[in-house]
Amino acid sequence: MTDYRKLRVALLGAGAVGSQVAALLLRHGDELADRAGASLELAGIAVRDLEAPRETDLPKELFTTDAESLIVGADIVIELMGGIEPARTNILQAINSGADVVTANKALLATHGPEIFDAADQVGAQVYYEAAAAGAIPIIRPLRDSLAGDRVQRIMGIVNGTTNYILDRMDTEGAEFLDVLADAQALGYAESDPTADVDGYDAAQKAAILASLAFHTTVPLDSVHREGITRIDKTMMDAARHAGYVIKLLAVCERIAGDQESISVRVYPALVDRSHPLASVHGANNAVFVQAEAAGNLMFYGAGAGGVQTASAVLGDVVSAARRHIAGGVGVGESTRANMPIVPIGHVTTRYQITLEVADQPGVLATVAGILSEGRVSIATVEQTVTGEDAVTARLVIGTHKALENDLSETVDRLAASGVVQRVVSVLRVEGD
Amino acid sequence: MTDYRKLRVALLGAGAVGSQVAALLLRHGDELADRAGASLELAGIAVRDLEAPRETDLPKELFTTDAESLIVGADIVIELMGGIEPARTNILQAINSGADVVTANKALLATHGPEIFDAADQVGAQVYYEAAAAGAIPIIRPLRDSLAGDRVQRIMGIVNGTTNYILDRMDTEGAEFLDVLADAQALGYAESDPTADVDGYDAAQKAAILASLAFHTTVPLDSVHREGITRIDKTMMDAARHAGYVIKLLAVCERIAGDQESISVRVYPALVDRSHPLASVHGANNAVFVQAEAAGNLMFYGAGAGGVQTASAVLGDVVSAARRHIAGGVGVGESTRANMPIVPIGHVTTRYQITLEVADQPGVLATVAGILSEGRVSIATVEQTVTGEDAVTARLVIGTHKALENDLSETVDRLAASGVVQRVVSVLRVEGD
Repeated sequence: MTDYRKLRVALLGAGAVGSQVAALLLRHGDELADRAGASLELAGIAVRDLEAPRETDLPKELFTTDAESLIVGADIVIELMGGIEPARTNILQAINSGADVVTANKALLATHGPEIFDAADQVGAQVYYEAAAAGAIPIIRPLRDSLAGDRVQRIMGIVNGTTNYILDRMDTEGAEFLDVLADAQALGYAESDPTADVDGYDAAQKAAILASLAFHTTVPLDSVHREGITRIDKTMMDAARHAGYVIKLLAVCERIAGDQESISVRVYPALVDRSHPLASVHGANNAVFVQAEAAGNLMFYGAGAGGVQTASAVLGDVVSAARRHIAGGVGVGESTRANMPIVPIGHVTTRYQITLEVADQPGVLATVAGILSEGRVSIATVEQTVTGEDAVTARLVIGTHKALENDLSETVDRLAASGVVQRVVSVLRVEGD
Repeated sequence: MTDYRKLRVALLGAGAVGSQVAALLLRHGDELADRAGASLELAGIAVRDLEAPRETDLPKELFTTDAESLIVGADIVIELMGGIEPARTNILQAINSGADVVTANKALLATHGPEIFDAADQVGAQVYYEAAAAGAIPIIRPLRDSLAGDRVQRIMGIVNGTTNYILDRMDTEGAEFLDVLADAQALGYAESDPTADVDGYDAAQKAAILASLAFHTTVPLDSVHREGITRIDKTMMDAARHAGYVIKLLAVCERIAGDQESISVRVYPALVDRSHPLASVHGANNAVFVQAEAAGNLMFYGAGAGGVQTASAVLGDVVSAARRHIAGGVGVGESTRANMPIVPIGHVTTRYQITLEVADQPGVLATVAGILSEGRVSIATVEQTVTGEDAVTARLVIGTHKALENDLSETVDRLAASGVVQRVVSVLRVEGD
């Protein structure tokens, strides 16, 4: 075996991903050395509690509670603890002691990305985070490098496996949200506190990271509009299916033309045409659909989560970091010089599907159409069906042309207060055209 | 605007891709500078004939026939001439005069890759070739970097747009090969000499490049088994559809377990189950399906050809090369230290579908089954239908379990000579499980 230069690798965290990373580093050490051109020596694994139960046969002597000592002298620090602190402090320590950093920490990057990237820039270190946006799917390098000469127009991403699993089962089995959620929790697909997933926080963090890469600009997490899937019920699913759609939780990152170009970054459940490639992303899988000016339509598909899957992305970053150490030179910083304004959700233009319950009597459709027209919301399709046993209530499903979110929401308010609308059943955006 | 360091970019070739690269470099110069951290100055465009007609409004003063003078003093050389010479000589000149190289030249890389990569290693230059394997689809960086910590088990790629266009129209319209080919030629999807596409040469070059990246080993082009699509006819398409398959020209790169691991790299038309993600890749699109030990199944989808689409990949490489120039350090060489043996096609194991015309008389199925069993080819499914007006000929469609190619081809020869088989209608491999 070639006598490679040794690089010391410090691992912070031994959870589902961390323990897989450690196991693969040890198991495939020779192979990884040949690829990296450097021997990757796992110097230790920092954990909070040495006695915590772990389903792993990693050598006990690798574990330590002293993250700081481990970081000092490491060439590459892998941060897989998650959360903001002490991850942030440890990463800054690693950078300032000359290490490159590999992290899967989307929450940290979405909130403290600029601080961390600036610190790396100042010392010529590099931060790798392929695992932070879509699990095992290689999407960071394609956006950061392969598409760096192109102009991304729009990203539509299914970037949260838990919600896709839930929505997919609601769609295919006609199940209710809470029943599938309970199942997902029992199977380990959803946390006991499912908020981060079902309320869209996880997807919003990933959307901020993807938009920043795609548009070469800084995207603060609080500029990402976020809606979860808890309001999606069987009725909405059935109606979507009937109309040829499926409901997906989408992270949409969009370039908006204008005197000054701007962008929109938003996460919400949206109707996607069944013929769209994103519609056939089933189960807990993820996919990122990218529309670029020159490249056209691209899609990246794979496992969005899972310990061993995410470990694949982490180890790819470790090999990259090792290659960079051997090659010399400073790290390549983040490209965020575009300084794109980020528009609030009210300024976004999409198509909508509005479902209303109205009194089944003459003149109602004319009144509804009038309110929409006054509100600058143009109707593309209308379907009216009589519902209920009384036969006095009708259901009106209206598909709109592209309309401004502000106009749409004011119009829906006016519809609700109009007297002829008994109930606004649902208002969903339509994405993917 | 920031005062960036200037990098001189030399472009060799002004065809469909080259002219788009030049136009985008000029149009988006400021934006690309912000991303690269360097100003990309198009120093000139080398062409063979200054007077050749070009559909472009690029400044005339950029054009030159003196490639050598342009290369000397360039920081980045983009080679888009295609073919072996003078591309090879020019690339070696560029490397030896200190430039990084960006190329989309699959024919050159598949045949002279090691020579070019070695030359780059010796001077610390880097060769970028994102556009060489699947047009605009980012697949080189994912394989080279993102999956460098994983073990790729298999790649199945639809990497030739022309043949996918032809097979897709044969499938959806029930058309014959030669008719669709003529159409494709009229539309500009196929060359007047379609050999490179329909005989699988283009796909074989891409397969060699992908396999080399995926398995970190050198893959000589002549070790790639290659079959084209010219023998695929309407009857075979119809039979495939009837059995729930679609026929795709696949580039298969596969790791084979054993005392010593080996790989197989092969290009042929294969049956793909309609539920497989590759089955829904329509028209001239490309897709690369990757199965990796840790990451699981991934798919990369997009436009596999086209001037402006390919230009996207080329410009991403130009930005990467510029960033590397600014960051300093030497180039990261190719990872080919695995030295994997490449097995001949006869040692490959796949499933098969064998379609035979047999005499419709007692005992035939038993004879056929006996020959298969003796040949170590295990039957998974059989369907027998009576064909022809005479009602004395039956069609037998046999799906096999996994069998060794050598066993299978000997068995088919024995079937053909058995007396009970009137005609071997088709033998197709089944991929994707």
